[in-house]
This record gives sequence, C-alpha cells and structure tokens, in this order.
Amino acid sequence: MSTKNPMLSLAFIAAILSAQPALADEEPLTMAAVMAAAGPQDWRSVEPENALYMQLPQGVVVFELAPQFAPATIANIRKLVQQRFFDGLAIVRSQDNYVVQWGDPAAGTPQAMPHGDAADTLTPEFYRDRQGLNFEPLNSRDSYADEVGFVDGFPAGRDADRAWLTHCYGMLGVGRATPVDSGSGAELYVITGHAPRHLDRNVVLIGRVLVGMELLSTLPRGTGPLGFYEQPEQFTEIQSIRFGNELPASMQMSLQVMRTDTDRFRDLVAARTHRLEDWFTDPAGRIGVCNVPLPVRTTPVE
Amino acid sequence: MSTKNPMLSLAFIAAILSAQPALADEEPLTMAAVMAAAGPQDWRSVEPENALYMQLPQGVVVFELAPQFAPATIANIRKLVQQRFFDGLAIVRSQDNYVVQWGDPAAGTPQAMPHGDAADTLTPEFYRDRQGLNFEPLNSRDSYADEVGFVDGFPAGRDADRAWLTHCYGMLGVGRATPVDSGSGAELYVITGHAPRHLDRNVVLIGRVLVGMELLSTLPRGTGPLGFYEQPEQFTEIQSIRFGNELPASMQMSLQVMRTDTDRFRDLVAARTHRLEDWFTDPAGRIGVCNVPLPVRTTPVE
Repeated sequence: MSTKNPMLSLAFIAAILSAQPALADEEPLTMAAVMAAAGPQDWRSVEPENALYMQLPQGVVVFELAPQFAPATIANIRKLVQQRFFDGLAIVRSQDNYVVQWGDPAAGTPQAMPHGDAADTLTPEFYRDRQGLNFEPLNSRDSYADEVGFVDGFPAGRDADRAWLTHCYGMLGVGRATPVDSGSGAELYVITGHAPRHLDRNVVLIGRVLVGMELLSTLPRGTGPLGFYEQPEQFTEIQSIRFGNELPASMQMSLQVMRTDTDRFRDLVAARTHRLEDWFTDPAGRIGVCNVPLPVRTTPVE
Repeated sequence: MSTKNPMLSLAFIAAILSAQPALADEEPLTMAAVMAAAGPQDWRSVEPENALYMQLPQGVVVFELAPQFAPATIANIRKLVQQRFFDGLAIVRSQDNYVVQWGDPAAGTPQAMPHGDAADTLTPEFYRDRQGLNFEPLNSRDSYADEVGFVDGFPAGRDADRAWLTHCYGMLGVGRATPVDSGSGAELYVITGHAPRHLDRNVVLIGRVLVGMELLSTLPRGTGPLGFYEQPEQFTEIQSIRFGNELPASMQMSLQVMRTDTDRFRDLVAARTHRLEDWFTDPAGRIGVCNVPLPVRTTPVE
C-alpha cells in the first residue's frame, strides 16, 4: 500500500496496523494504540430517549441530544416529534462551509404545519450555569472561549459563570429569527463546515450527529442567498423524526460514545496533540477543541 | 421574508439589504457595509500564471497559488501540468470533515503516469523565513500558532523565525508519504472540513480554492479507510488541469481577491469580530484565522 498510494495519510494506516494496548499516564500514545486499549468502562451507552433519528430517503441520521444544556428546548422538540410535526417537512438549506437546515418550508404562511401543544417561543438556552456539569477541561488556547473542554462527550466552553456547547463540525442547533425567544426547535441546523464559533451563546445548541453525517455534508449546496434551495424540487424530504424510545427495538441502533472524563480520553487528547506517528515531523503540541475526535461505535456483542 | 423563514440567518439578509458605504477608522461596521464601501483599490487581480484551473465533469475549480510560500513545489507542478500529467487522472479520496485528494490511481505500479522532467522528490517547503512577506497580523488567540494573519489573501501563521500557510477550509496542499521529500505535487488535496491545523508545517500548502469549492466539498465520501474510494467507478475524472496563462483568453476567468493589507480589510475583520447585526446578542469580540472571509469576485466591468 505504501508504494501504490503515496498519499497524505499513509501514517494513519501504519498507526492503525501497529495498534497495541498500552497504559495511561505514560508517554503519549498513538490514537490507534489508545483506541485499541479502550475497554468497556471507557464507553457510555447512548440513552434511547436522548437519541434522535432523522430518516431521509438516503438513509438515517442519528443525533445524541444534550438535555444538560437545553432541557426546555429539547422538551419542546419532544412535543413536536410526538405529534409528528417534522414528518414530511424538508431540508431547505445547504450553505457551503456553514450549515444544513431543515423545517417547514411553509412556516409563516397559512399552510404552515401547526405546532400543536409545543411552544412557538422559548426562553433561550444559549448557556447555562457552569456549576453542576461533568466538565473535562482541555488545555487549549482557544480563539473564542476563556476555557474549553468536554461535557459527557460534547465539546463545550465556559467562563467564570457560564457554560455552553461549542459550534464544532456536526453540532446540532436550533434556528431562530432575530428575537431571541424565536427558536422553538421547529427549525434545526447542523454545522457542515469550519466551526462558526461566533455563533456560540447566540443560538441554542442541543446535541451532535453520531451517525450519518455524510448524508448531510454532501447535500448539494443551495444556489439561493445563504444556501437556501431555490426550488422545492431541490429539497430533501424528512420522512420522519423519532426519538429512540419511540422506535421498536429492531429499529434502534445500540450506540456508544467514548467517555470524555477518563484517563483513556486524556490519552486520546495527548495522542492527537503530540502526533507520534512517523509521518509528523513537526507535531503541533497543541490542539483545538473542534479537532479532538469524539469516538462513536455500535455496542460490541459480548 | 422574516415571517416566511424564521431561520438562523435572517440578520445576514437584513445586513445585506441595509448596506451603505461608510468610512474606515470609525466604529466597527457590518460586513455588508464594508463590502459596499470597497473600491477598486481594495481588490487585487489574480495573475493568470498563479491561477490553476481543474476541469471536472461537474464544472471547473479555480485555485490561486502562492509561490511566495512554495516556489519549488509550484514550479514542479507547472512542469507536470505542461506535460498534461493530470489529464485523465482522478479524485481518489473524499474523507468527511477532512480532505478530497487526487492524483494517479496507478502511482507506484508499472501503469503509473510518468513524471517526465518533473522531479519525483523535492526539498519540502513546509515553511519559509518570516522576513520578506507582506504579513498582516490578526489579533487572535490561536490554538496552534504563536501568531496568525494574512499574506496577500492567504491565511498564515508565523513564529520568531518562520512563516507558513495555515490549513483552513479550501486550502490546497501536496500529499506526501512518510519521507518528507516525497511530496512532488503529483498528489494534491483540498481541505473540506474543520481546519486540521495540526498539519501546518508538516505538509506543503500551495494555495487555495477561489471558485468551485462546492464541487469538491459535496463529493460522495469514500467508503474505504481514510475516505478512499473502493471502486474506480467512484472516481471523479480530472479532465484537465491548466494554468491560466495556458488558456485562451475566452476561457480565463478574470478574478479578483480582496487585498488583506488595507484599512478596508481591517474593517472586514472588525465587522466579523464584533458582529453588529441585530441578530447577535452576545458578539464574540474575538475571531479565528480560519473564520475570516477572504472575498473573491469576478472583475467588474468598468
């Protein structure tokens, strides 16, 4: 393989091939070694009631929601999902290096889907109190936040008082108009480009993509302003959105995310900071919060 | 529009609609106001000999090259292009949130395209001396570099001695195997995800995409390891690669990039740092080097 494809990432292949278990609290390891050494205690199962399944014609996208950051917003989305608000709506926007967004193309017109018992406005959950979170700090000189790190597998920032989720690739958020209470959860978006961190604390983030990101990131870009599709034929239909606990067991994916509060995860961060693979001749020795991988897997069969 | 689409970016639309000329050295302006106020002196024409045109079945991708950072690498690519090395080769890899990459699928085999008078190995241009560049510093607490900024429209970093281009979205680089001199320019890649800044100074960057980025970013992701396509039928053919000065005038695009060494550009940075649009309730007041837009336009008709 090394002669056939002299490419960027041969060292990653080599690292995977040379993976072997190793111990924490030693010299930094390679990513492959960290992953190989991870045991069941390093993973957390995703709760079905926090897993959101969006069925598209191309396949399913699965999100994990973070009620520790946006409980009221997620409760409102749960009401929308329970009344099947999203089923038959559409992805209406794909802007390159920014977002895909979906909701009701008829919002604001007489043909709009009713929100039923879900609220149309919500007190915005742009941030929360920094206390009471399992915040694992990352040693990173962040361009935007005083401090960054991870909370239960989600990237996050905090200052002296507040904590918030950060707009990294694959994060799920709630579109809103100019009024801060206008984000009801009826319009959702996913970040598909370089992290637009200036949105942090200005929009409510509610989770992240675990499965099927490529179904969103490869959508044709809309040719209208801001990447909106100009013709309804360009929309992608949302066939359904369901919470995991609404699905029959046979349709649920048993997913695990790597815990971010363990020595194993600290090893992972060190591996990605110091890049011991031979390919790297000048390892950064530094890392950004949106460059730390947050591994996901299907639960292994015992 | 504000009632029809209660979405993330209504304020951007409002800002565009309310654009009006304004002066530099005052309070920060909106991005729309900065763009409206930009005059001919704020733009630089792209030299045809630094413009690279890659024709794909879906359309053309145009890059601007940066010989001030990688003169020997670009000279070698010029030799490859002049002998039509790339014509008929393929995009062989698309890895989500990372890169697309192209070159000779038969590299390393007896069927490989010969490199002709181009070199197979090159002394790597991972960085250069920091002196002698038109470096416009950006006030940013960067996660990776001591200092970041812009050089002639390209994002860059520097330390006490060295300067280098930074791996932002849309940057063009030279794939290599583990030997540092193995990046000949016969394998090229473009960043299609969150900036993998750990690659800075470990790979040779040579330019950035000006036109057609969406043709690369929406390519189906490869299902093999590292996003390589598993079947040749999945490749995208490279119909041709040419420098602008090789093309008939009728096929050249007359492109301009915004200068990054002007008060206008400093206004642009301020606009994106302070976000005066009504939509933002908690402007960051900070910015990352890969979040600063670097505007491109076709030269206006006088």
